[in-house]
Amino acid sequence: MLLSNSPKMSAAKAGILEKINSPADLRKLKEEDLISLSAELREFIIDVVCTNPGHFGASLGVVELTVALHYVYKTPFDKLIWDVGHQAYGHKILTGRRDVFHTNRKYKGISGFPKMDESEYDAFGVGHSSTSISAALGMAIAAEKEKKDRKVVAVIGDGALTGGMAFEALNNAGIEKSDILVILNDNNMAIDQNVGAIKQYLLDISTSHAYNKLKDDIWKTLGKIKRFGPNTQALIQKIDTGLKSIILKQSNMFEALNFRYFGPVDGHDVVQLSKVLKDLKDIPGPKLLHCITKKGKGFKQAELNQTVFHAPGKFDKVTGEIIRPECKKPKPPKYQDVFGNTIVELANKNKKIIGITPAMPTGSSLNIMMEEMPDRAFDVGIAEQHAVTFSAGLAVAGYVPFCNIYSSFMQRAYDQVIHDVALQKLNVVFCLDRAGLVGDDGPTHHGAYDLAFMRTVPNLVVSSPLNEEELRNLMYTAQCKDAGPFSIRYPRGEGVMADWKKPMKKLEIGKGQELFDGEDVAIISIGPIGNEAIKARKFLLKENYNAAVYDMRFLKPLDEELLHQVFKKFDHIITVEDGTTVGGLGSAVLEFMSDHGYSSRVKRLGIPDKFVEHGPQQTLYKDCGFDAEGIVNAVKSMVKVRVYSNIS
Amino acid sequence: MLLSNSPKMSAAKAGILEKINSPADLRKLKEEDLISLSAELREFIIDVVCTNPGHFGASLGVVELTVALHYVYKTPFDKLIWDVGHQAYGHKILTGRRDVFHTNRKYKGISGFPKMDESEYDAFGVGHSSTSISAALGMAIAAEKEKKDRKVVAVIGDGALTGGMAFEALNNAGIEKSDILVILNDNNMAIDQNVGAIKQYLLDISTSHAYNKLKDDIWKTLGKIKRFGPNTQALIQKIDTGLKSIILKQSNMFEALNFRYFGPVDGHDVVQLSKVLKDLKDIPGPKLLHCITKKGKGFKQAELNQTVFHAPGKFDKVTGEIIRPECKKPKPPKYQDVFGNTIVELANKNKKIIGITPAMPTGSSLNIMMEEMPDRAFDVGIAEQHAVTFSAGLAVAGYVPFCNIYSSFMQRAYDQVIHDVALQKLNVVFCLDRAGLVGDDGPTHHGAYDLAFMRTVPNLVVSSPLNEEELRNLMYTAQCKDAGPFSIRYPRGEGVMADWKKPMKKLEIGKGQELFDGEDVAIISIGPIGNEAIKARKFLLKENYNAAVYDMRFLKPLDEELLHQVFKKFDHIITVEDGTTVGGLGSAVLEFMSDHGYSSRVKRLGIPDKFVEHGPQQTLYKDCGFDAEGIVNAVKSMVKVRVYSNIS
Repeated sequence: MLLSNSPKMSAAKAGILEKINSPADLRKLKEEDLISLSAELREFIIDVVCTNPGHFGASLGVVELTVALHYVYKTPFDKLIWDVGHQAYGHKILTGRRDVFHTNRKYKGISGFPKMDESEYDAFGVGHSSTSISAALGMAIAAEKEKKDRKVVAVIGDGALTGGMAFEALNNAGIEKSDILVILNDNNMAIDQNVGAIKQYLLDISTSHAYNKLKDDIWKTLGKIKRFGPNTQALIQKIDTGLKSIILKQSNMFEALNFRYFGPVDGHDVVQLSKVLKDLKDIPGPKLLHCITKKGKGFKQAELNQTVFHAPGKFDKVTGEIIRPECKKPKPPKYQDVFGNTIVELANKNKKIIGITPAMPTGSSLNIMMEEMPDRAFDVGIAEQHAVTFSAGLAVAGYVPFCNIYSSFMQRAYDQVIHDVALQKLNVVFCLDRAGLVGDDGPTHHGAYDLAFMRTVPNLVVSSPLNEEELRNLMYTAQCKDAGPFSIRYPRGEGVMADWKKPMKKLEIGKGQELFDGEDVAIISIGPIGNEAIKARKFLLKENYNAAVYDMRFLKPLDEELLHQVFKKFDHIITVEDGTTVGGLGSAVLEFMSDHGYSSRVKRLGIPDKFVEHGPQQTLYKDCGFDAEGIVNAVKSMVKVRVYSNIS
Repeated sequence: MLLSNSPKMSAAKAGILEKINSPADLRKLKEEDLISLSAELREFIIDVVCTNPGHFGASLGVVELTVALHYVYKTPFDKLIWDVGHQAYGHKILTGRRDVFHTNRKYKGISGFPKMDESEYDAFGVGHSSTSISAALGMAIAAEKEKKDRKVVAVIGDGALTGGMAFEALNNAGIEKSDILVILNDNNMAIDQNVGAIKQYLLDISTSHAYNKLKDDIWKTLGKIKRFGPNTQALIQKIDTGLKSIILKQSNMFEALNFRYFGPVDGHDVVQLSKVLKDLKDIPGPKLLHCITKKGKGFKQAELNQTVFHAPGKFDKVTGEIIRPECKKPKPPKYQDVFGNTIVELANKNKKIIGITPAMPTGSSLNIMMEEMPDRAFDVGIAEQHAVTFSAGLAVAGYVPFCNIYSSFMQRAYDQVIHDVALQKLNVVFCLDRAGLVGDDGPTHHGAYDLAFMRTVPNLVVSSPLNEEELRNLMYTAQCKDAGPFSIRYPRGEGVMADWKKPMKKLEIGKGQELFDGEDVAIISIGPIGNEAIKARKFLLKENYNAAVYDMRFLKPLDEELLHQVFKKFDHIITVEDGTTVGGLGSAVLEFMSDHGYSSRVKRLGIPDKFVEHGPQQTLYKDCGFDAEGIVNAVKSMVKVRVYSNIS
């Protein structure tokens, strides 16, 4: 049942939110109205997101913080930077986007993340984690140089704080005298539960555990000196009180980094938050406000199942039940679930296999392994760099780590792939989920570049499966002896095989496959997008084009034998990849062609050299011209040319 | 004068070192012999490095630590991981490489960094900063799983500790119960002086500043309660002593991260170090030993000029004077100095320009700007990710940051380039020093991949100058209005123009230049390696080959007009780049050729698809076949073919 917060809900009926067209309107409100406004804002978010899926829990958790920030700070003159940004729905609604909020994450609609092009209130474009303090410091130093009395605020979650660049920024901000406020939005969660020493530390300071432990220790010491006369007890009491603030300050990690630490405060008390923020506004230098919030606040199921309600899809706003589309025939699984189940299957046979995820147990489905073999699967926090080099350390010791990182987040660990794995020739298996166009999350999350940037790395096997069975075979192959540094990329979403649990077999590394022979044109693809090529072939046959289809499987090493065969037979070749056409499969094929003196015509289909906006995956494939229809059109335009040139 | 430490030096004459062929020999020594051994080892390093240039100060600073570690730990069974690794000369000498140490960093000689292929004592291959704790944790968890009583030690400098991935690793290690010892080698230095809040914090705890401040605060509080009877003074004394250890522990940042903190200890007292390490060996769980050392210890000039003696080149081991090769005619400057001087010149005119370096003021020559305009140049610590996004924040606010990062370190900030700069269309100027083959530092430091990985990024201008004048022009162009995200890469070492301070002019973005027209073949290059193409042309003319030479200047956007001109005229084209041939300039040219239906023969010269070992730059260019001679050979092999085919 919905946790209805009934007094607030009734206040919501008053309709304050509908009068807020910008934060300037908000700032005209009385402080006590902020409570009603927060309730309305929360209800509005629930109303929209239950039918128009998006991120949910994070935005509910910062409703009061959002209201208080825009109430106290003069946005957009003052700069407000949301780390990651999936918590910024309230911010969007309050900053002139209430009436278009129903288009959130929809094709051609507003972005699910703050985006500078979209609004002057979006001070920085975000999507990936842990960037906010760096960007805020840049803006704060700029404001200082221009002697503008501009305030800069970064809101960062405790999960995002585990990302190394947040620490790099704190370390740097601590020595600059810039006027920056970091709000630590501490809900004890990343998408899954937050992990690591910092999480425990935050819990310690927010529950005064550290102080209490210290007090115990002090009492033990003081206990021994009770013999010091009649006033000792009173004295001890006095000391205890007097030392509390000093000690808390001294033992604070953020203070050690030269940040003034304030808090913890209740992140759901909007009136108190406003007062605190007002006070902090006048304190110069780097400051951190520790704010305790609850992810999913105000929607009971979301509070209880924070991971599920991070981005729940459609749900019933009264019962909280998640609405799944009905399905008559058995559905193919998500690639991530094929990974999640297969790694357990493999790990049962190969005792050396270890699973690693940087804070994406649910997103990668490594949670299956974490439940079944908790001592062999590690969530290392939002820490892609560490995830890769930690894997390298395991591999040095003879283990076979499967390090699962979303393609676009792998950009964070590129150096570690090169320097700590490939150069060292270690058998780390990178599983790059969310490779290619991811859909609704848009340009920050599209895995557009991995084929190109992984291909340049020596010693690295770069592969992608055509379907679920092949994913299993590639995973099997990657953990065989001498497989070396190995990467397997696969997309977001579902595969094509309802019956996917086939026995696994070892594939020959660097060997592709001919799926269909043909006459007029060869279509060469890598990864599941090859299924669009297969579809295209069917359409083409109806129009009397006989297209051959090849699945490379391996972008590196390239199957040169297969390519010789193709280039000897075909004058027209189309490459298809769910990745950038700048440096990817198509370019590899061109390099092969050039190196071996062939001169067929080659057309490269894939993600063009621009940032692709958000929208359903299939729509984006179509827009980029590499769905079945796009492939058909490419073939027709190409082969027609050949026919004419033969005639002329 | 050499700080000769005369008693130790005389001990050195005893010749202990020459009997140490492996750490097993070392472990047979008596504890008191370690002092003599340390002195000999230090002298040996000085002797070799003064004539055979390499890293110097870092290894001198850890002589005692190195001896103590191999004395106490059972290497290679126990694992010893050196962060960065340029401090590992003593380690190499003690682990069977004494007699080949004179080949250090020489072509075909031993590597200047620990390298797993080279020795079983090199537990992890290193070169880049901040990787050691991640790798150590992997090895420690592996050992734990196999129930091996293996100890794992990571030695990390205070500079490397500012790198975010070190923090990611600490955060993760703090929750694993693995038996890992992190030795913080605190010398207050990166290559230049270390910066950031952490540095100050380490100084505070090592000088007991934090404790003293706390004590002051306590006394202030206690002072107010003196009226509590006659025994108060004694009581206060008692409390003060009793609380000291509790408070120091509580206020320790590493303890907050669940590491047991020990120290600080004198890193030059080898006997005490051995005792401490022995004690720590038996304490389970994550531990950190804070060790205070002096970079350059035992060589006076190195102690006094730590940055200069980080890697001083040849020097006189008696006077400490640095020996520079004699030079009669005016020498061309280093590219880094052209950058360093030019940014000051530009910044004097454009008040929006800001300089940023992640811990490489001297290496990038940004120190020139830091001295002349200290408020406009920032050393942000070893923190490439933060450096880029901090730059992005400045750019949002209308500043023009020049963010100078070595090519191979830019791999660390790839995501930030894509996500925080290119996607946001911000005018951040990336200056990628040490691009291409860097020479003696070898595979960890070669900037082999940047052309390929930067080229895939939409919105980004990717450029490289032919010479010093062009570098200045590119820098000028990059700070002009609407230049957008802009990268300029240039190599390690000297340019070609003695008289380089030419007036600057704006270049048209995406326009290359024809350097020489020709008939038989077109050579297309990017960057200073184009000077090899010019040399090649001269050789070729003598043998009656007339080669045209084109300098692309911009890899992105490509000068399509120029390329149309080239492809219309030439059947034979050679591309030359000081970067990988997988996805770089050559591939871009092939993509152009394919997209526009040309079919010339193209040969790509550049770094092959493998990790290139260390050696002099010119030797490596030759090995990779893209020096003038390599280009000549490529032309001959290519054009000969054409001649024959015409005849047949």
